[in-house]
Amino acid sequence: MRITIIGSGNVATHLAAAFKNAGHRIVQVYSRDAQNAALLAYHVKADPISDLTQIDTETDLFVIAIKDDAIGPVAEQLAVYDKLMVHTSGATHLFALQAYSERSGVFYPLQTFSKTREIDFRNVPLCIEAATEDIARKLAELAQTISNNVYCVDSTQRKILHLAAVFACNFPNYLYNVAQQLLAQHQLDFNLIRPLISETAAKAQTSLPASVQTGPAVRRDETTMNDHLTLLENHPDLQQLYSLLSQGIIKMDIDLHGDK
Amino acid sequence: MRITIIGSGNVATHLAAAFKNAGHRIVQVYSRDAQNAALLAYHVKADPISDLTQIDTETDLFVIAIKDDAIGPVAEQLAVYDKLMVHTSGATHLFALQAYSERSGVFYPLQTFSKTREIDFRNVPLCIEAATEDIARKLAELAQTISNNVYCVDSTQRKILHLAAVFACNFPNYLYNVAQQLLAQHQLDFNLIRPLISETAAKAQTSLPASVQTGPAVRRDETTMNDHLTLLENHPDLQQLYSLLSQGIIKMDIDLHGDK
Repeated sequence: MRITIIGSGNVATHLAAAFKNAGHRIVQVYSRDAQNAALLAYHVKADPISDLTQIDTETDLFVIAIKDDAIGPVAEQLAVYDKLMVHTSGATHLFALQAYSERSGVFYPLQTFSKTREIDFRNVPLCIEAATEDIARKLAELAQTISNNVYCVDSTQRKILHLAAVFACNFPNYLYNVAQQLLAQHQLDFNLIRPLISETAAKAQTSLPASVQTGPAVRRDETTMNDHLTLLENHPDLQQLYSLLSQGIIKMDIDLHGDK
Repeated sequence: MRITIIGSGNVATHLAAAFKNAGHRIVQVYSRDAQNAALLAYHVKADPISDLTQIDTETDLFVIAIKDDAIGPVAEQLAVYDKLMVHTSGATHLFALQAYSERSGVFYPLQTFSKTREIDFRNVPLCIEAATEDIARKLAELAQTISNNVYCVDSTQRKILHLAAVFACNFPNYLYNVAQQLLAQHQLDFNLIRPLISETAAKAQTSLPASVQTGPAVRRDETTMNDHLTLLENHPDLQQLYSLLSQGIIKMDIDLHGDK
């Protein structure tokens, strides 16, 4: 397919590379920032543009991978070309595009991307939605050229998925940071804890998390929990977080195994 | 070495197997529960006992891998044999043993263990502490026979390490559970989110977590955060957790990059 990438951020970068690697032609890369457009365009052998009036109409698909609140305004400008267009946002309704064109859909890669980190796109779940069945079929076909995990997910489900992703990715990463900061404050190496982070995530690949929960809360080890709260006495926000998460673990365990 | 395992839980099981695999002789396995003692003893070709008076004195080391609050009382009983003894607890001071014998130390494997899951012990960080330098050397030597990651960590540091492990492992696992529950409530497959869990942990292996934070909070995307809080309106505890963690992420990002 001939694909135009609108955006030059993490998602735009990884999607453009995945399309290119799968043999698609990237026609243009648009970014408001000419330098960012040029950089990504260079990598995927496309033409950079920084003005939407420079759009090459010889394209099959606009992939709109920009900030959520810019999706609507940009879609409105692109609608005049009457091409298929998709956005890549977990939190944005299909309607943001459909308001301007029936030739619209969603192409949401459920992964955390960093520009400097390679990723095997074949393992990235791609969540597809479209305004019509015909477009859905077309997008699913395209998705399968870059990923082995293609799912049909409507806008309501996608919102839940995005919320779940915040709990499964953004919040754990923040907790890794809390751990790293606590260690650093006591001259301890973050490497000490990295194998634990790996193994915890690895367990969740084959088990349901509730069934492999470990730690003081699930053991109802009040002594250790109180010790930990004392260690956190200079961090009232972390104390509150510790208590809330521990209560959650106990509630989860009671739901699973009954009261102890 | 000739090693006696006191306990038959997750840590006892994995440590006993690691010692056995490294060529050490497991003399006996003690558990109050005779069946648990028999099960683990069978696996590591040791004699099971369920009464501490049956201890075989032809041993070099007692490894006390039992509940934190039982460590002191058991150590008191074992002290009469005047053998080297270690506990394996992150949250317990060396003093719990040293109160009864100078031939004491700590052998804390920093990992999350489940009985049903194999683990490559060579990658498990082992944190060593001892009452004397001589014992520290002996324990470090023993530790190196089963792990490539041996650290000297005193009791104060070990408490911090244990606290950090709760943030890096127990709490993220609980958040995986929250994600899984949210998905299940909307007929969505947990597999959709598993690659994200893997990648988030994989990033932390080579980066500092603060530098790879993604999601609505670090973007200051108020619209999405408010949408998420609305989606959680039937879960006030999760709303509170969501707000607290998002505030933490924003604070972390300001500390790292300044205010946006």
